[in-house]
Amino acid sequence: MDDLSTNVAFVLFRPLSAGNVGAAARALKNMGFSDLRIVDPRDEINDDAYRMAVHARDVLDAAKTYPDLASAVADCAITAGTTARDGFYRSGVKPVREAAAELIGLAPANRIALIFGPEDFGLTNEELKHCHTLITIPTSSEYRSLNLAQAVMLIAYEVRSAWNADLDTNRITVPLLAPAGEIDAMLTRMTEALLQIGFLPQDNPDHIMFAIRELIGRARLAPRELDILNGIARQINWYAHNGRGTLEAKRLAGEKFR
Amino acid sequence: MDDLSTNVAFVLFRPLSAGNVGAAARALKNMGFSDLRIVDPRDEINDDAYRMAVHARDVLDAAKTYPDLASAVADCAITAGTTARDGFYRSGVKPVREAAAELIGLAPANRIALIFGPEDFGLTNEELKHCHTLITIPTSSEYRSLNLAQAVMLIAYEVRSAWNADLDTNRITVPLLAPAGEIDAMLTRMTEALLQIGFLPQDNPDHIMFAIRELIGRARLAPRELDILNGIARQINWYAHNGRGTLEAKRLAGEKFR
Repeated sequence: MDDLSTNVAFVLFRPLSAGNVGAAARALKNMGFSDLRIVDPRDEINDDAYRMAVHARDVLDAAKTYPDLASAVADCAITAGTTARDGFYRSGVKPVREAAAELIGLAPANRIALIFGPEDFGLTNEELKHCHTLITIPTSSEYRSLNLAQAVMLIAYEVRSAWNADLDTNRITVPLLAPAGEIDAMLTRMTEALLQIGFLPQDNPDHIMFAIRELIGRARLAPRELDILNGIARQINWYAHNGRGTLEAKRLAGEKFR
Repeated sequence: MDDLSTNVAFVLFRPLSAGNVGAAARALKNMGFSDLRIVDPRDEINDDAYRMAVHARDVLDAAKTYPDLASAVADCAITAGTTARDGFYRSGVKPVREAAAELIGLAPANRIALIFGPEDFGLTNEELKHCHTLITIPTSSEYRSLNLAQAVMLIAYEVRSAWNADLDTNRITVPLLAPAGEIDAMLTRMTEALLQIGFLPQDNPDHIMFAIRELIGRARLAPRELDILNGIARQINWYAHNGRGTLEAKRLAGEKFR
């Protein structure tokens, strides 16, 4: 568990209750994890939090706070959001056991962020943009919404179980993936490029980019693939500003055009 | 889940905190169970309990209270106690996943009691006498003791998962993917587009396209995603032939340009 415990981050997005944050810290320590991250919390870490953390005070004390989700997951190669809902943007949602087995295949070479929404609303489509993978906990259709700390516990438990199952078999070589922050930067560049050539509508570029983002997340980009996509975006931007004439002139002059 | 939900009872032995009883009620309902039994509680069912139960008020209201463990499990054919400890009476302890699969093989023909000890001490050897089976939740050796409601959730989840695995083999939904021939056609169109704007070298476009092909194959394209990529390739080609001037003119004329 040594490698994995520091390479899986649990990210609580705008949690409402400090008690739940404390209970989540306990769940992490129960399952051998320690990296707790809190984004824009709506409650102070207080006595309630420490009361619920019990012997996981160290995890709570070490928890880092971030102003937004992007900065909280910037060092993570894989970001997995949790959702209880189905919907238009949520077609790729995987049950936690299946997702955990996949994620474990990529750790410990890659840092993984598991992202949990607030108690009252869960993650919205805005936050789901930052998630390469969506995880759901199978529940009764009568009552889908789990307590936040319960969801953290179940997912920590499944990741730990998958890790232990994985140790029993020979570990295969783990691919090194591009970090989330660099993928974000590429997607921003690509959006600009596709706006330049009139592919994306100027009034609502996000709708189509959301689908592209999901596709990219699912593919799990290697650094070289990220370079290629950045190159395409840069070249579209270059071409849109300089046009065919400049390209032909460079070609005739035998210049490298990239 | 219909049969099983009424044939698995969750028994809390001398729980200390009404909040935990409420959280346990919520966990039961999340996982499709409803039979909650409380033995000699040390706290009244109070506002805390209802606050933690949220939408599982019905489960909490229906919970029955018993003076001792024997009467609480009298109608159950199988009794399974939960423990975090090893010890003299605990040599037959099974991890929850293995235990759940076994128990499910016996339900729904037989009523099963899952028994949880108090927050401060767990089940003692006296109560374990009433248990046919002992279940443990695998944890980190650093911190073995789970919050009571967390333990209820994990075990409810595993019993539910074992039950669904029994049913599931016939109803895995298979996602519909884009056919290989259409993906090939899109990649041909994309190659042409990336040559047009000077991204791919004219003497060896295949080298980079090979990496893109691999990425696309790994992502497993849905038909809508194929449409988007085809749209990007077409628009790059269109732009390369018509240029910025035509695009601006169309925009000014309010025409749809795609």
